[in-house]
Amino acid sequence: MVSDDEAMSRAIALAARGLGTTSPNPVVGCVLLSAEGEVVGEGFHAYAGGPHAEIVALAQAGERARGGTAVVTLEPCNHTGRTGPCARALINAGIVRVVIAVDDPTPVAAGGAATLREAGVRVETGVRRAEVEEGNVAWLTAVRRGRPYVTWKYAATLDGRSAAADGTSQWITSPPARADVHKLRSSVDAIVAGVGTIIADDPQLTVRDLRDGSLAIKQPWRVVVDSSGRTPVTARIRDQAAPTWIATAAEVGAGPDGRVDLAALLGELYARGVRAVLLEGGPTLAGGFLAAGLVDKVVGYIAPKMLGAGQPSLVGAGVTTIAEAIELDLTDIARVGPDLRFTASLRAKEA
Amino acid sequence: MVSDDEAMSRAIALAARGLGTTSPNPVVGCVLLSAEGEVVGEGFHAYAGGPHAEIVALAQAGERARGGTAVVTLEPCNHTGRTGPCARALINAGIVRVVIAVDDPTPVAAGGAATLREAGVRVETGVRRAEVEEGNVAWLTAVRRGRPYVTWKYAATLDGRSAAADGTSQWITSPPARADVHKLRSSVDAIVAGVGTIIADDPQLTVRDLRDGSLAIKQPWRVVVDSSGRTPVTARIRDQAAPTWIATAAEVGAGPDGRVDLAALLGELYARGVRAVLLEGGPTLAGGFLAAGLVDKVVGYIAPKMLGAGQPSLVGAGVTTIAEAIELDLTDIARVGPDLRFTASLRAKEA
Ligand SMILES: NC(=O)c1ccc[n+]([C@@H]2O[C@H](COP(=O)([O-])OP(=O)(O)OC[C@H]3O[C@@H](n4cnc5c(N)ncnc54)[C@H](OP(=O)(O)O)[C@@H]3O)[C@@H](O)[C@H]2O)c1
Ligand SMILES: NC(=O)c1ccc[n+]([C@@H]2O[C@H](COP(=O)([O-])OP(=O)(O)OC[C@H]3O[C@@H](n4cnc5c(N)ncnc54)[C@H](OP(=O)(O)O)[C@@H]3O)[C@@H](O)[C@H]2O)c1
Repeated sequence: MVSDDEAMSRAIALAARGLGTTSPNPVVGCVLLSAEGEVVGEGFHAYAGGPHAEIVALAQAGERARGGTAVVTLEPCNHTGRTGPCARALINAGIVRVVIAVDDPTPVAAGGAATLREAGVRVETGVRRAEVEEGNVAWLTAVRRGRPYVTWKYAATLDGRSAAADGTSQWITSPPARADVHKLRSSVDAIVAGVGTIIADDPQLTVRDLRDGSLAIKQPWRVVVDSSGRTPVTARIRDQAAPTWIATAAEVGAGPDGRVDLAALLGELYARGVRAVLLEGGPTLAGGFLAAGLVDKVVGYIAPKMLGAGQPSLVGAGVTTIAEAIELDLTDIARVGPDLRFTASLRAKEA
Repeated sequence: MVSDDEAMSRAIALAARGLGTTSPNPVVGCVLLSAEGEVVGEGFHAYAGGPHAEIVALAQAGERARGGTAVVTLEPCNHTGRTGPCARALINAGIVRVVIAVDDPTPVAAGGAATLREAGVRVETGVRRAEVEEGNVAWLTAVRRGRPYVTWKYAATLDGRSAAADGTSQWITSPPARADVHKLRSSVDAIVAGVGTIIADDPQLTVRDLRDGSLAIKQPWRVVVDSSGRTPVTARIRDQAAPTWIATAAEVGAGPDGRVDLAALLGELYARGVRAVLLEGGPTLAGGFLAAGLVDKVVGYIAPKMLGAGQPSLVGAGVTTIAEAIELDLTDIARVGPDLRFTASLRAKEA
């Protein structure tokens, strides 16, 4: 006999396995319990266009689902997209009770719970909601805001420098920290960098196994924010390892300063299905994003080093006095090899 | 029956109660066990000129010490300073066994173990040595180097700024972090700041209870590093709350740049009995200390804020390229209110 709570916990773990490959869809996990309360099916949404979590779990359970309960992280969809509506599939399979953590915020897919109720299925919502919101934070935030969820990642020394006085910056952080960044990259749909970083460092911005350099099967988009198209023809970011978009002001639109309009850029990425963006700098582009209020989360890798000179980790975020400082909440502090990694979310400005 | 290990653990805790008030002496703790292995006396060295830990414990134990064991964090002294030699006192009290964590590195006080052995007392050393070294790190390091142990403390934002673009810096960190700084101050013999900080912020640099502003009974020295004596006559640091020294180049000596010679300054402080220094900045003076290799430990209070402009937390540490970065080891990471506090020790340069 498995409790709703235990089943949801398992569904959350299943959902997380889809991170990085489901956009523009959310990650979803589903556990089916038989009438006797035993687990008879499990599923998660693995990639956009693939079967939804409920369908995978139903296929596994077969007839054993009849009279049972579906425990699912997100409200079952109600529309016929690339797959049929899950609410209908659950009804047809004889599910009598559905336990949901979070309602679907998208107008097109919502309504699943109502459909289920109309068919006489008991529906309960809110089980482990906070945890599921957290696991789907990028997608939920993106859908609610109509722009991708933006995580700014950077590496710096304890005194906040991203490069030494002579411009050298490789490597500030340790191999374990760099491996961690590749994990972070693998969880997003697009990696965004400024043309300044492309010219200075010529990074490849792919997801790789750092032990042998082998590329991951799924690569996020690479996006260069490059107002006037200065990205060198020979830049590594133009190679065939992953799709690349050089986003110019001519294509995206410009702000009052003539530079790429960052909100428009994010709107365009959202329209193309991007829900989670990893902003990898540099300091000037990060300043532009922060000044425009377009950063949701910050992940900083801080090496136990001091430089006392060289490029600061952040430039031009639009703050002039201490009372206007951009405020965050530290949500996690960890050691990664010899380095410190902090995670912080942007504090909502009071209205 | 108390084990040597347990007794030493207790002696370490006792020793720590003297931190901040024993200089130029070390902190020392002592536990006396009777012949049956029961605790019959405890003591610690509370202030310079006061009785040593062994003497306090012997006074408490009286005749019950006879035939017993003394467990002491530091080798009992052998010389007649402001108090008589502890080795002799232990012998006279009939102690038959002495357990020591760390040998006394000072030439004048050392030799206690030899005196004890000559009198037929069994002597064992090295019990919980690492822990005792850690608890006495400031004093031990100071005595071995002939200069005070220097802890650089600073406050900064996540992007490494110590002030905003308009110079405002109060307050970067939270009240709990500021209270923590007062605890740090209470553990040292002198607080050192640059004249730049005195002119910009006019700090008082005292140990206070932040709830009511009341001053602690014991105040560390306040030292201003001020090559040409620019400290304003009205500066709060000149008030009567604590002793103050305006250290000028004329008095201390100057380096090739005409500024106060920092190694000479530390030598002078050591000669005056200072063993632990808290360097409270600012960025330029901290750069001078780091460039000269005169910092042992760094305590940083990092507020979850971003500025993107304004004064960096460290300036002019003599590093120009990433390979020459000053390297540290993170020894502690903690949350203090909403802020992050890291503690790091300077990594010894390879010869
Ligand atoms: N430690 C780290 O985590 C890290 C990460 C990345 C980079 N870095 C370092 O950062 C350095 C490069 O920094 P950077 O600041 O020069 O380059 P950057 O931030 O990568 O790129 C800045 C450029 O982006 C373009 N841009 C377009 N639209 C913008 C907008 N709305 N707002 C802001 N910028 C916009 C601008 O050039 P156009 O106007 O020409 O488009 C701008 O000069 C390198 O030394 C690199 O090593 C460090
Ligand atoms: N956030 C924090 O933790 C924190 C802490 C302290 C200060 N601050 C901020 O720091 C700012 C002041 O910084 P600052 O860099 O101007 O002042 P500073 O570091 O306090 O003082 C620097 C001055 O110290 C004197 N000095 C004497 N001998 C020196 C030597 N050998 N090496 C280096 N300096 C020597 C120099 O002036 P002379 O040559 O005239 O002697 C130098 O200009 C203020 O805005 C304050 O708010 C922040």
